[in-house]
Amino acid sequence: MNEDLSSLKNDIIENFGTPCAVIDLNVVEKNIASAQARCDMANVANRPHIKTHKSPVLAQMQLDAGAQGITCQKLGEAEVMVNFGITDIIVATNLLGAARTGRLANLQKRVPLKVCADNLVSLAAYTKAASDASRVMDVLIECDTGQKRAGVESPEEALRLAEAIQADKWLSFAGLLFYPAIDSWPETQVFYDELRDKLAHIGLTANIVSTGGTPNFVNIGKLKGTTEHRAGTCVFNDRMMVKAGVATLEDCAYTVYTSVVSRGGKDRGILDAGSKTLTSDTGGLEDYGHIIEYPTARIHKFAEEHGFLDLSKCNNKPELGEIVRVVPNHVCVSVNMFDQLVAVRDGKIQQVIPVAARGMLV
Amino acid sequence: MNEDLSSLKNDIIENFGTPCAVIDLNVVEKNIASAQARCDMANVANRPHIKTHKSPVLAQMQLDAGAQGITCQKLGEAEVMVNFGITDIIVATNLLGAARTGRLANLQKRVPLKVCADNLVSLAAYTKAASDASRVMDVLIECDTGQKRAGVESPEEALRLAEAIQADKWLSFAGLLFYPAIDSWPETQVFYDELRDKLAHIGLTANIVSTGGTPNFVNIGKLKGTTEHRAGTCVFNDRMMVKAGVATLEDCAYTVYTSVVSRGGKDRGILDAGSKTLTSDTGGLEDYGHIIEYPTARIHKFAEEHGFLDLSKCNNKPELGEIVRVVPNHVCVSVNMFDQLVAVRDGKIQQVIPVAARGMLV
Repeated sequence: MNEDLSSLKNDIIENFGTPCAVIDLNVVEKNIASAQARCDMANVANRPHIKTHKSPVLAQMQLDAGAQGITCQKLGEAEVMVNFGITDIIVATNLLGAARTGRLANLQKRVPLKVCADNLVSLAAYTKAASDASRVMDVLIECDTGQKRAGVESPEEALRLAEAIQADKWLSFAGLLFYPAIDSWPETQVFYDELRDKLAHIGLTANIVSTGGTPNFVNIGKLKGTTEHRAGTCVFNDRMMVKAGVATLEDCAYTVYTSVVSRGGKDRGILDAGSKTLTSDTGGLEDYGHIIEYPTARIHKFAEEHGFLDLSKCNNKPELGEIVRVVPNHVCVSVNMFDQLVAVRDGKIQQVIPVAARGMLV
Repeated sequence: MNEDLSSLKNDIIENFGTPCAVIDLNVVEKNIASAQARCDMANVANRPHIKTHKSPVLAQMQLDAGAQGITCQKLGEAEVMVNFGITDIIVATNLLGAARTGRLANLQKRVPLKVCADNLVSLAAYTKAASDASRVMDVLIECDTGQKRAGVESPEEALRLAEAIQADKWLSFAGLLFYPAIDSWPETQVFYDELRDKLAHIGLTANIVSTGGTPNFVNIGKLKGTTEHRAGTCVFNDRMMVKAGVATLEDCAYTVYTSVVSRGGKDRGILDAGSKTLTSDTGGLEDYGHIIEYPTARIHKFAEEHGFLDLSKCNNKPELGEIVRVVPNHVCVSVNMFDQLVAVRDGKIQQVIPVAARGMLV
């Protein structure tokens, strides 16, 4: 182990203990620049999804690098971002459970939000919030073109919602939200083209046509008409992105520093990071993370605070008390377990970044 | 739906939005009393594991019902409990990653902790913390009898650690920590008997002999020599406990109230509770939770903030905007996603209980 890393590990454990969530600022900055460059090259605005970092500090870094605005998945995330001074926000989900608390109206009073809907019940909630806030609300229609998530499944349904928005004095039609599967971009084009013509027929234009996803960067701009792309994971990357071929391990900015706290048998070990740290989300991969120092070690099982190591394939095995760095399978859910990220650069701790929107369940 | 429940759901969504973590105090109190009664009948002290609720308020309810003390899994959890005034605490893990921050010494200055070890490196960390705190530290030896988690695998290894504790002026041998698999209690007895004799030979007695686990309540007291039992999940119960046959759905005190936010197709629906709410921990079960109102609906997939419903088996299907209650597969990891629990009784909101030790990763 080089001396810089050894001394950084000491600094981490003495100041924060383990497990500790660490981001490498050099890699983060490279990732932010690279996402922006990909958007710029495609002539598509960049609207990063902040669900990955949940931090206004990191959102501001993305805006400073050229992003148009941000995407949030929760009203509470948007509140945190607005408190920090960020104002150009799409909340990319049907805000039904959040609207009824009055919080949506309160936030709409402060900044003009862009919200999403795939149904009339959501639209009614937005009408009420906009009217309570005395400010017209921008609404995008979420369209599903194969993922079978939220989203209307046909241009006809989308048109009906657009008509309802058009007829509502508290709502304004702002555009369309897509999240095509990696291989369903041609179908998405057919859907969009048909819908665009139908909308034109009633005098509407989608000013925002948004696509999403880090793996979908390979397709950015392919949907003719795209105005924006929203990607989250690329700010940090993870084992899923490496597996998908859109990042290398060197592009993974986020690691969990964890101690080997038990070595019950020759080929066994226990990390102090389990399902309450890295989460049980395997992202469809084998095992629960990649240990940088011991790439042949397997994290094959989790207890809540323990990761179970199978060291049978390791010639060189970690010692008791040793600190190792784990690249999680899915970074977005691991960041969400921490209240803070320790940001390092060139082997030195630089700052502590609060995961300010963590716990914003609504 | 009866009127009380309907009005409670309205109160929940208007005050807190969805998703919202709710506990039914009547069921919680019954569960706490039942765990205490099982310990009392076996003449074994009750030391509930607070990892499930992470709340001093609930820990105090357990102590008031007769518990001897509590079990924590993290130093940060113990800190929160000590701040609240709870002093009889076992931290049931090798505190390697936490000891080096100085926090262990600081807490040991305030209260005499009981800590656990399965290795000499942990013991060295405890010696340093105890000496920094100028207070002798009680140490239990963790013994593995088949689960292949942390813990020494033989009485000989345990004896060597006991000798090291005996020789150390800052450490005091306090006892043994077991977590037998449900079918390995006979082997645990053999291990314990042999170890007890070896310890007697060097003049040591295990004042604490601790067993653990909610499913292991069926075996409580079976290990002759047991002085304490530590169980966590039984305070709330979950789908895993129902599957294990140690609880019924009526014993499940914790549910997540979640809204149906999208109905993209006849047999599809989306909840506003996903892997950042219920977590991807299936506990080895099929699907991701049980919907009380629609027991034949399947939560078959998660996105971070969305649960994907398969409604093909439902005659009666939930409507858009409807609030449903989900019993999670594994309650301990779901509670850990929330900053607060809304406590209800007889259809009325009673209080908001902070999950005060959430986010205490160290």
